[in-house]
Amino acid sequence: MIRDAFVLPEGQIYLLGHSLGPAPKAALAAVERAASVEWAHGLAASWNDAHWFTAPERVGGKIGALIGAPQGSVIVADSVSVNVFKLAAAALRAAPADRRVILIEDETFPTDGYVIEGLARLAPEVQIARAPRDRLFTDISAQIALILASQIDFRTGAAFDVGAQTAAARRAGARVLWDLSHSIGAVALNLSAMGVELAIGCGYKYLNGGPGAPAFTFVAPHLFDALENPISGWFGHAAPFAFEPQYRPAPDARRFAAGTPPILSLAALEAAVDLALTVPEQRAAAHVATLQAAFLDALGGALPCLSPAARGGHLAFAHPEALALKTALIAAGLIGDFRPPDTIRFGFSPLFLIEPDVVRAAGIVREVLAAETWRGAAHTGVVT
Amino acid sequence: MIRDAFVLPEGQIYLLGHSLGPAPKAALAAVERAASVEWAHGLAASWNDAHWFTAPERVGGKIGALIGAPQGSVIVADSVSVNVFKLAAAALRAAPADRRVILIEDETFPTDGYVIEGLARLAPEVQIARAPRDRLFTDISAQIALILASQIDFRTGAAFDVGAQTAAARRAGARVLWDLSHSIGAVALNLSAMGVELAIGCGYKYLNGGPGAPAFTFVAPHLFDALENPISGWFGHAAPFAFEPQYRPAPDARRFAAGTPPILSLAALEAAVDLALTVPEQRAAAHVATLQAAFLDALGGALPCLSPAARGGHLAFAHPEALALKTALIAAGLIGDFRPPDTIRFGFSPLFLIEPDVVRAAGIVREVLAAETWRGAAHTGVVT
Repeated sequence: MIRDAFVLPEGQIYLLGHSLGPAPKAALAAVERAASVEWAHGLAASWNDAHWFTAPERVGGKIGALIGAPQGSVIVADSVSVNVFKLAAAALRAAPADRRVILIEDETFPTDGYVIEGLARLAPEVQIARAPRDRLFTDISAQIALILASQIDFRTGAAFDVGAQTAAARRAGARVLWDLSHSIGAVALNLSAMGVELAIGCGYKYLNGGPGAPAFTFVAPHLFDALENPISGWFGHAAPFAFEPQYRPAPDARRFAAGTPPILSLAALEAAVDLALTVPEQRAAAHVATLQAAFLDALGGALPCLSPAARGGHLAFAHPEALALKTALIAAGLIGDFRPPDTIRFGFSPLFLIEPDVVRAAGIVREVLAAETWRGAAHTGVVT
Repeated sequence: MIRDAFVLPEGQIYLLGHSLGPAPKAALAAVERAASVEWAHGLAASWNDAHWFTAPERVGGKIGALIGAPQGSVIVADSVSVNVFKLAAAALRAAPADRRVILIEDETFPTDGYVIEGLARLAPEVQIARAPRDRLFTDISAQIALILASQIDFRTGAAFDVGAQTAAARRAGARVLWDLSHSIGAVALNLSAMGVELAIGCGYKYLNGGPGAPAFTFVAPHLFDALENPISGWFGHAAPFAFEPQYRPAPDARRFAAGTPPILSLAALEAAVDLALTVPEQRAAAHVATLQAAFLDALGGALPCLSPAARGGHLAFAHPEALALKTALIAAGLIGDFRPPDTIRFGFSPLFLIEPDVVRAAGIVREVLAAETWRGAAHTGVVT
C-alpha cells in the first residue's frame, strides 16, 4: 500500500482511521499551499486563479470517481448532518403526497436521527417511523417516502447489501438515502451499478481528509431536476456571481451546495482524495479484509468479536471493562476507540496499514489482557 | 495599527478586505499547527487535547467579545447561508401563529433572499414579503414575524441604525435577524446595548479569517430556550458524546451548531479573531473613518461616491466603464472590486491599512482616469 504517503505516530499502531484518518503528507502540503500561497499571496483573485470556486464540484467529481458516481452527481459541501437535512427534505418534497414517512433505524448513528427529528419539527407533515436495522427493508409500508440507512453499522461494523436493499425499497415505492460515512475508502462501491439514488458521507474517516473535512452529497442524475435543496444558498445557484434576485438552481448536484465553502479544509480533503484514487477501491477493500483476517488470526479469540462476516472497515469487540481496556491499550501502543457501554472498535484503514502492524496489534491486545494490572482503574474523559 | 501582523501583497494596495481579508501571519501559523501538529501528530486525541471539541463555542465567545455579546450567545458553525436558514426557521416557529411573514429587502444580498425562498418552499406556511431597504422598518404589519436585514448595504456601503431599527421592529411585535457580514471588524457593535436578538455574520471579510471561514450565529440569552435549530445535528446536542437516541438541545447558542466543524478553517479564524481583539472596535471603526476621509480628500471628486455619510467599511463609486476601470486599477497596483453594472468598491480594512496607503490609492485612481488608454477594453472573468 502507500504507507509512506502518511504521517503516522511513532511507536504506536493507529487502528482509529474509522474515526479520524491520519494526515496524508500531500494533504499537509496542500493546506500549507492553500493558506500561505493561495490566500496569503493570491488573495481574493485565488477564487479564480487557484480554482477555489470550482472546488466543491471538482473534489466532488474525484469522490464520484472513487465510488462509481457519474460526473456532476457528487458535490462537496457542509457537514454530514447538514447534508442529511438537505437530501431528506428534498426527497420528501419530491415524493407522492400520500408518502410522508421517513423510516430510520431504531439505533441509527445518532446525528442522522437527530436531524430527521428536526426536519419533522419544521415540516409538520413529515412523520418519522423507526425499525430495527435488520427489518428496515423487509416490510416497507405505502406511506414511506424515504428510508435513511447506513451501509455500515457504526457499532458492530456489519455491512448491508446496498444494491439489494435499494432495489427492495424502490419496488415498494420508497427511496433510500444512504449514509456512506463508514463505507467510503474501506468498502468497494459502485453507486451507479448499485442503483443508488441518494447518498451522503464523510470526508475525515477512511478518506483521511482532515478533522471536520467537508462532507459529500450524491444525487443520481435522473433526480437532478426533481430535487430542490431547501437551503438554497448562493453556491447552489446556477450563476452565483450574476447576483440574480431570484434563486435558480444549478442543473446538477451543485444545487446541493449552500454557502461559501471552507477552502483550507477543502484543500486537505482534495489531496487526500487524490491519494485514495491511486489505489483502486477493489484493491483497498481486499486489503481491509486481509488485515482483518490477519488480526483475528493473531488474536486467537482472546476477545469476542461482535462483527459479522459481512462487514466494513472496522471490527468491534466486547469487554466488560472496555473503557479501561482501551486506555490500557493506548498506553501499550495500540490506538482504538470505545463506544458505550462495552465495545472496543479497531479500524483497518487500507492505505497505511500493513499486516505486521495488525499482527503486532493483536499481540498487544493479548499482552494487555494477560497483564490485568489495568482492571478496575477509573477512567474519565470525552469519547472520541 | 497592526499592519506587520499581516502578509500583504508587495507593490499593491489591497482595498478588497471587504471581500476576502488578507492573511494574518498568526492565522497561517495556526493552520500549520492545526494540520501538522494537532492532526498529523495528535490525531483523534486532539479533539480533547487540542480542544477541537470546544472550538465552536470558544471562537464564538471571542467573536462575542468583539461585538458586545455575552458568553454563550455566539457559536461558530457552518456558512452564512446555512445560519440564515437555521435562525429564520427557528424564529418563525417561535413567533405567534398569526405572524407567518418574513420581510426581506427588495435587493438584499442575494444569498440571504435565496435562502428565505428555500425555507418558504419547505415550510409552506411561511410567506415572504419584500420592501425597499429604506422602508423595511417603517410600516411593519401585524403579520410580520421576522425582518431579515443587513446592517450595511453591500453595494453602497450605507449603514443603518441597528439599535433604532431593532426597537422599531420590537414595538411592532416583530423580530429582526441582522446580517452583520459586512459590519464585523469594521463597525463598532454592541449587540447587548443595541437590543439585538438574532444575528449572523461572516468570518472572512474584515475579520480576516480565511477563504470560506466558518460563520457565526448570535442568539440573545432570553431566546435560548425558545429557539430550536431545525438542523439538529450532534454538535448542537447537550451531550454530543453520550450518543443519546433522542435529540436534546444544548442550553445556549451551542444548539445552533449542527455537524462536525471544519477544524483547519476554524483554526485560521480563531487566530484572526485573537488578532482583532487586540484593537478595540471603537478604535478600529474610527480608523476606518479616518482612512475613508483621507481617500476621499485625496481623490478630490475624481469619481462620484455612492456611499452616504453613515456607512460601513467600504466606499462605492460609479463609473460607466467600471469593470474596465477596475481591471486597469489592478494593473496599476490598486485592488478593489466591481459589482454590476457600474460600481467599483474599495474596502477600508482598519487593521492593516494606513493613511499613506489610501492617499496613494487615490493617486492611482486619478492617474488611471487621466490615462484613458484602458477605456473600451474587453473584459471577462468571474466577479470576486
